[in-house]
Amino acid sequence: MKVIEKINEMQEIAGSLRKKGNTIAVIPTMGYLHDGHCSLIRHGKEIADAVITTLFVNPTQFAPNEDFEKYPRDFERDFKLAEATGSDFLFHPSTEEMYPENFNSELKISGITEKFEGKFRPAHFNGVATVVAKLFNATLPDYAIFGQKDYQQTLVIKKLVKEFNFPIKIIVAPTMRETDGLAMSSRNVYLSPDERQKATILYKALCEGKKAIENGELNRINLNNILSDTLLTVRGIVIDYAAAADAETLDEPDVFNPNQSIVLLIACKIGKTRLIDNMMVLKE
Amino acid sequence: MKVIEKINEMQEIAGSLRKKGNTIAVIPTMGYLHDGHCSLIRHGKEIADAVITTLFVNPTQFAPNEDFEKYPRDFERDFKLAEATGSDFLFHPSTEEMYPENFNSELKISGITEKFEGKFRPAHFNGVATVVAKLFNATLPDYAIFGQKDYQQTLVIKKLVKEFNFPIKIIVAPTMRETDGLAMSSRNVYLSPDERQKATILYKALCEGKKAIENGELNRINLNNILSDTLLTVRGIVIDYAAAADAETLDEPDVFNPNQSIVLLIACKIGKTRLIDNMMVLKE
Repeated sequence: MKVIEKINEMQEIAGSLRKKGNTIAVIPTMGYLHDGHCSLIRHGKEIADAVITTLFVNPTQFAPNEDFEKYPRDFERDFKLAEATGSDFLFHPSTEEMYPENFNSELKISGITEKFEGKFRPAHFNGVATVVAKLFNATLPDYAIFGQKDYQQTLVIKKLVKEFNFPIKIIVAPTMRETDGLAMSSRNVYLSPDERQKATILYKALCEGKKAIENGELNRINLNNILSDTLLTVRGIVIDYAAAADAETLDEPDVFNPNQSIVLLIACKIGKTRLIDNMMVLKE
Repeated sequence: MKVIEKINEMQEIAGSLRKKGNTIAVIPTMGYLHDGHCSLIRHGKEIADAVITTLFVNPTQFAPNEDFEKYPRDFERDFKLAEATGSDFLFHPSTEEMYPENFNSELKISGITEKFEGKFRPAHFNGVATVVAKLFNATLPDYAIFGQKDYQQTLVIKKLVKEFNFPIKIIVAPTMRETDGLAMSSRNVYLSPDERQKATILYKALCEGKKAIENGELNRINLNNILSDTLLTVRGIVIDYAAAADAETLDEPDVFNPNQSIVLLIACKIGKTRLIDNMMVLKE
């Protein structure tokens, strides 16, 4: 696996791969890879000729009070994991390479970005959209693969691609979970053993919500209450949101249509660690 | 020359050209082509295998009080001119194709966009940057060619390309002028015969400013006064700005450095018609 640190070099490699008729899948990550990331790399290997994993902890998607500084980083480990999983390239630019002095552009997606995560992390999705557009132009992929765990982010990226006409197919791969249901996340490393135990409540709440929908519950407030009530069985949990919404638009009708695909979204704090998770209940 | 109206079709054509090893030059225009545009198309033919002229009057770069509705349009004439000049494709999307319902993205470039045109047309450059990013992704060019007449726009587009890492070389081609010096512009059609005569004052003012610099005048206020004083010899002219600035950064020092490339920028109204023009005084 080749490590690339410069945007120009990455573009040249990607451009020459494409000229040879090879397809490219990109897996954007902030590193500290876990099996969720590895499943995305493996998926990339299945559908494309070359896989580029990007590793960049993007400062512009963190607010000043958030965990940019302490976000876990381990380049050696990430290198080994990505290589062992079959990634062909690891694109690992420095912050100065991505945001040189006097950088002052921003890509803003309105609408879908404004609720849920957008409400609690106001500049987050602008930072995500901006860095993803840059990573797309650096790696020139045919496919970009994202994990469903960041559900609202996948909608924002689909909108970015659609509205700016990036010639890229976005693939959303299922959330990988620990045996007890906890969604894999680089941030799980922040959890103490006690908090780690408590954190399983997110998955339990989502399962309760899903079960209720499958049993015919379509009243949004009732569904939200089922999520919250389950979460609040854990002492000290702080809920940012626990909500049912339209899976495509994130609209929140009073009562869902029986033919509407619903996503259940949770963000909450356990101790100092903020966790998110989601579950879709698809209708055909 | 083939006319393409759909983004998908344009991307497929551009993608397959590139796969065959052909290079692409794009000439973004709002139509009502004049010899300035034709010179850009000719330049494209010289440097690339295929030339795509885009024709789209972009509503998002006009403010509500501006001339979007009455902006001159003549598709038949544009088609003939572009074809005769050697353009291979005319990309001519509808507004609905470019901005479908619920479109709500925006690309924002700060800094360089905030003065001169940005001060008088506050949302203009966001509209330009957004549509140009979309046109780049639709036409996948190796080169994009813009006229120097929209000087600040060329700086904004260079910044867009640099900051979002578009793998595209931006080429700025000289302003084409009428025999009496008036910069060619689709908006010149708005001018009455009397106003058309008065409009030559922009070029005269720029020449006066350039002469002064070449004679050693480096005081910015003095240079601005030379521009304004010349313009104001025309009765009824309204100056938005008439200013000397650093040609790369648009910075406005009190006194220019003898080794600094300077751009002289003018925007003014003659009757109801707003005209812009500029001239560079390069230092090696």
